[in-house]
Amino acid sequence: MMDRKKTLQVDLGDRSYPIHVGSGLLGQDQLIRPYLRGRQVLVVSNTTVAPLYLESLLASLPDLDTDSVILPDGEQYKSLETCMQVYDRLLQRRFDRKCMLIALGGGVIGDLTGFVAASYQRGVDFIQVPTTLLAQVDSSVGGKTGVNHPLGKNMIGAFHQPRCVIADTAVLATLPDREMSAGVAEIIKYGLIRDQSFFDWLESHVDALLSHDEAALTEAILRSCAIKAEVVAADEREGGLRAILNLGHTFGHAIETASGYGNWLHGEAVGAGMVMAAHLARDLGWIDQQQYQRARDLIVRAGLPAAPPETMTAERFLELMAVDKKAEGGRIRLVLQQAIGKAVVADQVPADSLRRTLDHFVSP
Amino acid sequence: MMDRKKTLQVDLGDRSYPIHVGSGLLGQDQLIRPYLRGRQVLVVSNTTVAPLYLESLLASLPDLDTDSVILPDGEQYKSLETCMQVYDRLLQRRFDRKCMLIALGGGVIGDLTGFVAASYQRGVDFIQVPTTLLAQVDSSVGGKTGVNHPLGKNMIGAFHQPRCVIADTAVLATLPDREMSAGVAEIIKYGLIRDQSFFDWLESHVDALLSHDEAALTEAILRSCAIKAEVVAADEREGGLRAILNLGHTFGHAIETASGYGNWLHGEAVGAGMVMAAHLARDLGWIDQQQYQRARDLIVRAGLPAAPPETMTAERFLELMAVDKKAEGGRIRLVLQQAIGKAVVADQVPADSLRRTLDHFVSP
Repeated sequence: MMDRKKTLQVDLGDRSYPIHVGSGLLGQDQLIRPYLRGRQVLVVSNTTVAPLYLESLLASLPDLDTDSVILPDGEQYKSLETCMQVYDRLLQRRFDRKCMLIALGGGVIGDLTGFVAASYQRGVDFIQVPTTLLAQVDSSVGGKTGVNHPLGKNMIGAFHQPRCVIADTAVLATLPDREMSAGVAEIIKYGLIRDQSFFDWLESHVDALLSHDEAALTEAILRSCAIKAEVVAADEREGGLRAILNLGHTFGHAIETASGYGNWLHGEAVGAGMVMAAHLARDLGWIDQQQYQRARDLIVRAGLPAAPPETMTAERFLELMAVDKKAEGGRIRLVLQQAIGKAVVADQVPADSLRRTLDHFVSP
Repeated sequence: MMDRKKTLQVDLGDRSYPIHVGSGLLGQDQLIRPYLRGRQVLVVSNTTVAPLYLESLLASLPDLDTDSVILPDGEQYKSLETCMQVYDRLLQRRFDRKCMLIALGGGVIGDLTGFVAASYQRGVDFIQVPTTLLAQVDSSVGGKTGVNHPLGKNMIGAFHQPRCVIADTAVLATLPDREMSAGVAEIIKYGLIRDQSFFDWLESHVDALLSHDEAALTEAILRSCAIKAEVVAADEREGGLRAILNLGHTFGHAIETASGYGNWLHGEAVGAGMVMAAHLARDLGWIDQQQYQRARDLIVRAGLPAAPPETMTAERFLELMAVDKKAEGGRIRLVLQQAIGKAVVADQVPADSLRRTLDHFVSP
């Protein structure tokens, strides 16, 4: 069999790790074994993913002391309470500091398992096996782990790097179309913020991505992770540059919140948010009409919404974007594009420009 | 007023921090202010300590946005559930990443507050204000934070260094005699494992410590922290050397468990455990009778028990020390002294020597 695996090394000194991308990697135990310090392995997954992929993962490690915890699927289970279920199992099975956790699932499973790994006995190793396109391009890099608190998302967490990431493009075959598009939204984002040639490439490969072409997916995941790794390496703990990763997210979060979490997928909201951000950049004269159109067209071709839900008003946006009364008529902070392939944190956006963009997208 | 403060710098690269030791430091806000990144300060304390010292701490920071969480006192509250109370307050008050937590209390408060600081918004700053002698000499150095799980102590935690430690010897005035002795047990341990001249000094100052002589306490706390810092710096994440900090602890934990937590103070159990370890070292010929007697005498003079409770049997010790059947007649691992001022991890202790020591201390 031809080896279709490609590997990106994330360079973080003694916390460096590889991201393996390719089709059929899930059962390849040789990607996992180099990182085992003992024989104990706990796989954390959810009720959607486990029936599909857990068995083949466990079957590749028959000689080890493996166990698994299957959590309910959904953002509402990303909590300290759910972490306790994992701690319980680790302690019931007397897993020691040399054990390995494996996160098999999407972003929720990855973030939660990473936090348990960061905190169990003050830190044990973990491996990410992301099973959604969004998690493969987003959660694989950055070391952010954590859970939600009733009063805020990701409020409890830690920075903890995985020992390796295994992004198997074959598992995307079972991913619903909407979730494929949501993943592509983040991929487009990497082109928009940092890499024009990647954006060009996406214009000619977006259909291949959506139809699960494995070579195209491998390429898109690798380049996305490389861009994120470059941004994060320059700014590991979120001072400045890292903020550009939030292109479209301020508008997007407002849409997610207004629609109620779960109605719009995160990637869908980011898609619409990036169109709105591009519109605002055009209004400011930072990009021209043609660049705006290119960004918007690619987002639409990816199957993503190019506008917020019809029920939203400009006032609701301003409220949810935390633009307070004092800022109106003043200046506000947003991530905006200066070109296809270049985004910056704009500290001085005139509030009336924002207002014109909102009025363009929402009903009067 | 003469400045009676002395400061030890714990050298950990960009996580270095000072330990200030002296009388009357609690209200000295200039020790805290250099580390504030914002105006939000949350003090975490307990129902025993808060009535005595919280007000003067808060009164020294009148211009800041301060708040406090007062937890019930006791090891049983060192849990994730209790952490949630602190997260709740932080989020209700909208404390951001630039906030400061201050742990005002003994080891439980320090460990728990440190873990909340390590995990709130993926890590915020904290300051330790230890109010027991044990916490001043033990928890101030090492960066270990965490809480208990029903199936094990300190099973959930993180390594997170404080920005500074403020060890006010004046607060020890309200500490019960038994807790003073328990703190002196750990102080004696530092002499025994690493510093003969400190042990000599303790022989002539133990009475001063127990009678709350502030100059003697300042000296003993500083030297204890310096020894621990030296050991930890050589082995921050617990490979080898750091294990010598557990002199007397294997016997001690068995005593604590057998007696039910809370009946023997940790320091009391360590005191008896160090006598037992010294006895075993003498049995092996590593130290002589006179050295054994010196160690035992100082522990007794500190008001500590020099033997386990009468109800314990040799079998119970072996069981709780996790010496399994196979090891009997074989060899086991313990921290033992080679001299006053030198302890090593002994991997090859003959089980029959251990048995002789146990038989000496327990009823037949």
